[in-house]
Amino acid sequence: MKRNVFAVIMAGGRGTRFWPLSRPQRPKQMLKLLTSKSLVRETVDRVAPLYGRRNVLVVTVGEHERAMRRELPMLPKTNFLVEPLGKNTAPCIGLAAVDLLGRDPDAVVAVLPADHWISDARRFARTLAAAVDLAARHDALVTLGIRPEYPETGYGYILTGKRAATGARRVTGFVEKPPLEKARRLIRRGALWNSGLLVARVATILAAIRRYAPDVAKGLEAIESIARVRRLGALPPKLRAALRREYKKMPSVSIDYAVMEKAGSAGQVLTLEADFGWSDVGNWDALHRMLPKEADGNAGIGRRVAFRSKNCLVYSSPRRLVALVGMENTVVVDTPDAVLVADIRRSQEIKDLIEELSRRGYGKYTAK
Amino acid sequence: MKRNVFAVIMAGGRGTRFWPLSRPQRPKQMLKLLTSKSLVRETVDRVAPLYGRRNVLVVTVGEHERAMRRELPMLPKTNFLVEPLGKNTAPCIGLAAVDLLGRDPDAVVAVLPADHWISDARRFARTLAAAVDLAARHDALVTLGIRPEYPETGYGYILTGKRAATGARRVTGFVEKPPLEKARRLIRRGALWNSGLLVARVATILAAIRRYAPDVAKGLEAIESIARVRRLGALPPKLRAALRREYKKMPSVSIDYAVMEKAGSAGQVLTLEADFGWSDVGNWDALHRMLPKEADGNAGIGRRVAFRSKNCLVYSSPRRLVALVGMENTVVVDTPDAVLVADIRRSQEIKDLIEELSRRGYGKYTAK
Repeated sequence: MKRNVFAVIMAGGRGTRFWPLSRPQRPKQMLKLLTSKSLVRETVDRVAPLYGRRNVLVVTVGEHERAMRRELPMLPKTNFLVEPLGKNTAPCIGLAAVDLLGRDPDAVVAVLPADHWISDARRFARTLAAAVDLAARHDALVTLGIRPEYPETGYGYILTGKRAATGARRVTGFVEKPPLEKARRLIRRGALWNSGLLVARVATILAAIRRYAPDVAKGLEAIESIARVRRLGALPPKLRAALRREYKKMPSVSIDYAVMEKAGSAGQVLTLEADFGWSDVGNWDALHRMLPKEADGNAGIGRRVAFRSKNCLVYSSPRRLVALVGMENTVVVDTPDAVLVADIRRSQEIKDLIEELSRRGYGKYTAK
Repeated sequence: MKRNVFAVIMAGGRGTRFWPLSRPQRPKQMLKLLTSKSLVRETVDRVAPLYGRRNVLVVTVGEHERAMRRELPMLPKTNFLVEPLGKNTAPCIGLAAVDLLGRDPDAVVAVLPADHWISDARRFARTLAAAVDLAARHDALVTLGIRPEYPETGYGYILTGKRAATGARRVTGFVEKPPLEKARRLIRRGALWNSGLLVARVATILAAIRRYAPDVAKGLEAIESIARVRRLGALPPKLRAALRREYKKMPSVSIDYAVMEKAGSAGQVLTLEADFGWSDVGNWDALHRMLPKEADGNAGIGRRVAFRSKNCLVYSSPRRLVALVGMENTVVVDTPDAVLVADIRRSQEIKDLIEELSRRGYGKYTAK
């Protein structure tokens, strides 16, 4: 029997780590960081050939809805699910599952973050197909684990147990952003990076939410009753308001914390080790590592001259020139109203800068 | 007898060392680098109270004439002498001397670069008065020498000999931009920084040019014949064209090389040691040393946040924000069309950058 597979792209993120390029109105997934296409567009283009455009859904938040529809005109109008406000991944995935229930209760769904990068699209497709098969046959929550390249402290890790019959492994636990030494130990014990990619039957996901996250399940029940009246991707204003009321009551919680950890302990989570070249493109430093480099390790976009400089990343606004002299390991990001100059190895501190800017009365440069 | 003293401000410089703030159309002397006034305006305001505005002349070049007149509306219209093209300091000073000859052949003139900084205006006035006195009584070319603070390799040095009766010293030679070791030796032997400030009778200057730089003198003779028809500060188009023809033939040579060195060997140059706090504001690094600093040694103008950063200099354009994270010893200059990010200790290399920009096809960012 041919299975109906849907891709759900989680595109509600805000993210300030790419300031001044990223702003609340122009979050990371909307940026053209690596190619001439935005990250969300790259994500859609990666899965649409696999499942068909009609089977690609995007979950976004109200304030980004218009921009997202403009960015992804190839998707059916009703495939945009709009969260009234961001409540982390558990409600987001639950909302999509409720919508899919109305389309095909037997469907399998692949849930993908909108703002990650995958370099080998063919391997990605093969891995996803294996995960779909696994999810359908074993009624399991299937995560994709990435073989770690180094002890990254900014990622989550998947702890793996014994090999499942199918070539996958059972997941025994999750560790979020471990300190360096712990990350090293985890890698020695065979832990994988958590890609945030989840494949499962819609029914399996909803059952797991009901079992492990009853407060989320309660909110979803109310949303299901709205979905019975009108498709969630095409709510009239009145039902939008009803959805907002339900969402306000919803707890803000991640799927890993609310569901996956507990389901893992109960032996219901499997992981497939993937090696399709993955990055969460977490900050300027990660981006620099992924971009093609010129001599001396410089990279960037726009009019720029990295004179006698090494390992620098430069973004310049249209028609403007950025010139470097004698710089190393520096990221320079020029936008129409602000310029960032940072030690690229300290890219994580940009979130602290954002707070400092507010304190100093420069909040308007980060607020819109 | 009351002496008629004139100040001649040499404001024809181009200078690319403050790129991207300085451009051919907006040279260093027109920039507000240290205060809310441009350097040339500061220079005029320093000498006008001493000699009266009518006795302050500005020598500029054709392309800057309009901007200069706009910048200095307090000066009489005929006090702007316009060189058709820049030919270094000997023709510039000669041109001013020829003009002054028509005003008062007995005058003493103080020649000042337009783009230097002097921190103690009262000491400056006292030193200048002493120099005028010395120049008038001894018929000498009087230079002001600055006691060196460190072995700067970007300055010229004045070699001094025995003390003249008046408290000044005889000058025995000039050294232009010595290497570090030589600069140290010069300082041990009592050499002074050459401030480029020259005080002498107009007649003394012209006689020295005739004697030591006959090719310059020849050009000046032709200009004198023009000056006999019309004041040099108010030439009609036809005479402007004649001046241009003469200037084209003029050698491009500095007063130090063409006149001062030879006159020094002949015992006609004196120097007064000055300590009025002087800098030629030669590049971003020199500027940073002179500006008032915030905690951590940061300085600058405009909207800027030097977050967890040290010893940085930041200029931002109006309404734009420049934010630094984890930077040290960095100069960031944001202008409407270009941004410079440089290791401030390598500010001298900006002239090399300018050439590189032309090679890379970005000449339009340095050309206007």
